[in-house]
Amino acid sequence: MTQSYFSEERSVETVNDRMGADVTPRMAEVMRCLVKHLHGFAKEIHLTQAEWETGIAFLTRTGQMCDGNRQEFILLSDVLGLSMLVDAINNRRPEGATENTVFGPFHVEDAPIRAMGDTISLDGKGEPCLFEGRVTDLDGNPVEGACVDVWSDNADGYYDVQQPGIQPRWNNRGRFFTGADGAYAFRGIKPTSYPIPDDGPVGKMLALMGRHPYRPAHMHFLVTAPGFQRLVTHTFVGDDRYLDSDAVFGVKQTLVAPFERTTQGDVSWRSVFDFVLTPA
Amino acid sequence: MTQSYFSEERSVETVNDRMGADVTPRMAEVMRCLVKHLHGFAKEIHLTQAEWETGIAFLTRTGQMCDGNRQEFILLSDVLGLSMLVDAINNRRPEGATENTVFGPFHVEDAPIRAMGDTISLDGKGEPCLFEGRVTDLDGNPVEGACVDVWSDNADGYYDVQQPGIQPRWNNRGRFFTGADGAYAFRGIKPTSYPIPDDGPVGKMLALMGRHPYRPAHMHFLVTAPGFQRLVTHTFVGDDRYLDSDAVFGVKQTLVAPFERTTQGDVSWRSVFDFVLTPA
Repeated sequence: MTQSYFSEERSVETVNDRMGADVTPRMAEVMRCLVKHLHGFAKEIHLTQAEWETGIAFLTRTGQMCDGNRQEFILLSDVLGLSMLVDAINNRRPEGATENTVFGPFHVEDAPIRAMGDTISLDGKGEPCLFEGRVTDLDGNPVEGACVDVWSDNADGYYDVQQPGIQPRWNNRGRFFTGADGAYAFRGIKPTSYPIPDDGPVGKMLALMGRHPYRPAHMHFLVTAPGFQRLVTHTFVGDDRYLDSDAVFGVKQTLVAPFERTTQGDVSWRSVFDFVLTPA
Repeated sequence: MTQSYFSEERSVETVNDRMGADVTPRMAEVMRCLVKHLHGFAKEIHLTQAEWETGIAFLTRTGQMCDGNRQEFILLSDVLGLSMLVDAINNRRPEGATENTVFGPFHVEDAPIRAMGDTISLDGKGEPCLFEGRVTDLDGNPVEGACVDVWSDNADGYYDVQQPGIQPRWNNRGRFFTGADGAYAFRGIKPTSYPIPDDGPVGKMLALMGRHPYRPAHMHFLVTAPGFQRLVTHTFVGDDRYLDSDAVFGVKQTLVAPFERTTQGDVSWRSVFDFVLTPA
């Protein structure tokens, strides 16, 4: 039998032998690996014709759910743990460095630059919380001029961009630049858990997998400084009921932060967390 | 570290341990296997953040290319050999039985029932060809009352449904029912090769893989009879330039049919092919 003809046994080789000669090495490598795992999946599970049709229809609906405000394929990647995996593979850090987690879809560029200690909560909702700590290098030396870009949902569980006209613009967002001591401080609210959008095909899939769509409460941080790797992370509230079952698998042990009751100043909570940057 | 938190090493287990308790066994099995291969792909290839973004954008465009007349995800499955693989897995046949190949998107239900020997070519284009042979069981006994449903592109490389208003309705389509001798015969045209739709994301991907979008010339057959498995197949023209490089990997050695010049009757070509059905 001509090797270029299809057979179940040699399906991977048959498809991959078709790769052209002038293909970039990386394109060839990625596609060969994709075909190997795609066929491996279908063979191992003995995928039926009806299941294949279900899969085609699911992917089609997922694509058609996407628009300028909704990215259902990123959501799919998130709930299957792929987004976290790609983040982990590309951000392996030395012991002691703060770990990355998923970026999420709600960051907005060029948030207002605020003075240290200022509040980011503009809607007056939620329990006031002081976030503070230091940005250091791996040896504990302060990093001056680091940009601490923060964002979170409000007390109702929505980001400002999800509720234009309802929340004030830039609610629960801000950028803070460290001084010579590497310290940062700002007031926000104790974060609240919320569901990822679950009214589309990914939400239906989650339900069929017996999973809930909630993310545990967290504050987003993007910490950047010249000479250091970009740090994309969250701090998580340790007593959140969804901490062990984040719908997008964003939780890492080292990112669970203390949130403590306080009577100091005008806040009810205080969360101290230091960020340790890795050299670029 | 709590096992439910994410780590690169245990990414598959972390995601799959989240499966709910009340999930159907098959759903759980399929999703666990999917996650294993999806993560396996990303780890083996060390998928970069930029490549992940390219993948998300590609899948989104593929979904958005789909409408009532165009199914870009099926096209994707076809060119990656997945459609053929699923067909093969689900239609393993005994030695001597006619093999399946991909159904394709151009079949239309309820084509006109024609008398044996009639022509299916209504547009007067192409080289007339007589298709004939027998439908038998595995022991060579004729199958009476088998429905031989046939369809092909016209001499310009398009199916009638791709050119409404240009081609006559039901051009190159028809159903023929066998008599006691199991024989079938009809006149059509010697099939011509044609490209699959390549103006979308899948066409761009094929180009990046250094592959052409052509299918070798073939006649489609759907042969059904009570008590036998449904046979979905093509016969291929043996001298086609794309026989070794079908864009959707549909060719099997046993489906390459003789197409011989003839001066008999009013046709230029003759193709004899017997269909051997498998018991249901």
